[in-house]
Amino acid sequence: MKKAVVVLSGGMDSAVALYKARASGYEELYAVSFNYGQRHKVELDYARKIARSANVKEHKVVKLTSITSLISASSLTSKKIDVPEGHYASENMKLTVVPNRNMIMYSIAIGYAVSIKADAIYVGVHAGDHFIYPDCRPQFIHTLDLLAKIANEGFISKDFQIVAPFLYNTKAEIASLGSLLKVPFENTWSCYKGGLKHCGKCGTCVERKEAFALVGLVDPTEYEE
Amino acid sequence: MKKAVVVLSGGMDSAVALYKARASGYEELYAVSFNYGQRHKVELDYARKIARSANVKEHKVVKLTSITSLISASSLTSKKIDVPEGHYASENMKLTVVPNRNMIMYSIAIGYAVSIKADAIYVGVHAGDHFIYPDCRPQFIHTLDLLAKIANEGFISKDFQIVAPFLYNTKAEIASLGSLLKVPFENTWSCYKGGLKHCGKCGTCVERKEAFALVGLVDPTEYEE
Repeated sequence: MKKAVVVLSGGMDSAVALYKARASGYEELYAVSFNYGQRHKVELDYARKIARSANVKEHKVVKLTSITSLISASSLTSKKIDVPEGHYASENMKLTVVPNRNMIMYSIAIGYAVSIKADAIYVGVHAGDHFIYPDCRPQFIHTLDLLAKIANEGFISKDFQIVAPFLYNTKAEIASLGSLLKVPFENTWSCYKGGLKHCGKCGTCVERKEAFALVGLVDPTEYEE
Repeated sequence: MKKAVVVLSGGMDSAVALYKARASGYEELYAVSFNYGQRHKVELDYARKIARSANVKEHKVVKLTSITSLISASSLTSKKIDVPEGHYASENMKLTVVPNRNMIMYSIAIGYAVSIKADAIYVGVHAGDHFIYPDCRPQFIHTLDLLAKIANEGFISKDFQIVAPFLYNTKAEIASLGSLLKVPFENTWSCYKGGLKHCGKCGTCVERKEAFALVGLVDPTEYEE
């Protein structure tokens, strides 16, 4: 029985990655989410919803808030810095970078995968992230895959790999695939601001709306405006 | 002013790494230690002592216990598995492997280093660790250094490097250098069992005694027997 651990943020990309893992033959799915002091903590409730919809065997939510004081200086974790508005692919989105965030989260996911002898870790990073986030680029994923194998030699599944199925896909393509795989997008959360509804203005909301529109899908999201 | 973050376990190797960082021209030192549910939690008190002796600017102790349930199956974190006795370089020491431990801890240290714009991370891994722990081998350190730079491109100090000064040294050589650098070894802790005194029998105690003996230093440690 092939097992995969999916790093689930509660957003649409990792939700589609979860369904994609199932469609790719991973029969036993595990999910892991992180509370790293993000102001949009509501995404964790959505991660729980999606994990339930996809019938994962186990969903762990790891509390990393003790790390937040070490790696501050991001608008996602510090209330002193406003979440920037506008399009994602712009300079001011650098304010949303949490230093080394993915390496920290994925390292923990790798430890989890080694413990349960999983054959893969699925992550939702995609081509649209590359511009701003160095820890979403292909070189990062490939080197991480190599490091995971080196760090756990003799203890890790022989077939182990880190799978980033959307590494070269746009968010619109992810929306399109998710629709085919019947991902319940209403159970996903994107907004960085952490209000009761999606704000519709921050980078990730703009990107979400655009993705559905580009492929002609109905956007099930309730926006504030 | 050159800054370094030292990953400080409270053991003798990372203590010497701390003093070595100072001796190598890093004027502003930061230390980070981890509570990952290890049964020898007393080492964290020793980490605090050594950080004070070395006059570090800031010492953070990061609580990672929420991760312990994910990456169990090690005698260091599970009370159900006995800490093995005897020499370190033997097969049964595999019981002390905590899946992906160093990658997790070092990833957090890298996030910290990026936040404070440090130029280096010092870690105490040494040649004697290679046999048992894949995440202490040269290939791991070199690949980690590469990944840290890739993951934080544009946000990390241009001179950034991960320094493992004892990567090719034995513990005896570390003891010898530590003696030259006047490291207060009585403020370090090695034993994996977590009693009030060093047990003198577990792999790391055996190794500690051996190191002092081999280079003819007085061992300041109080052992149980």
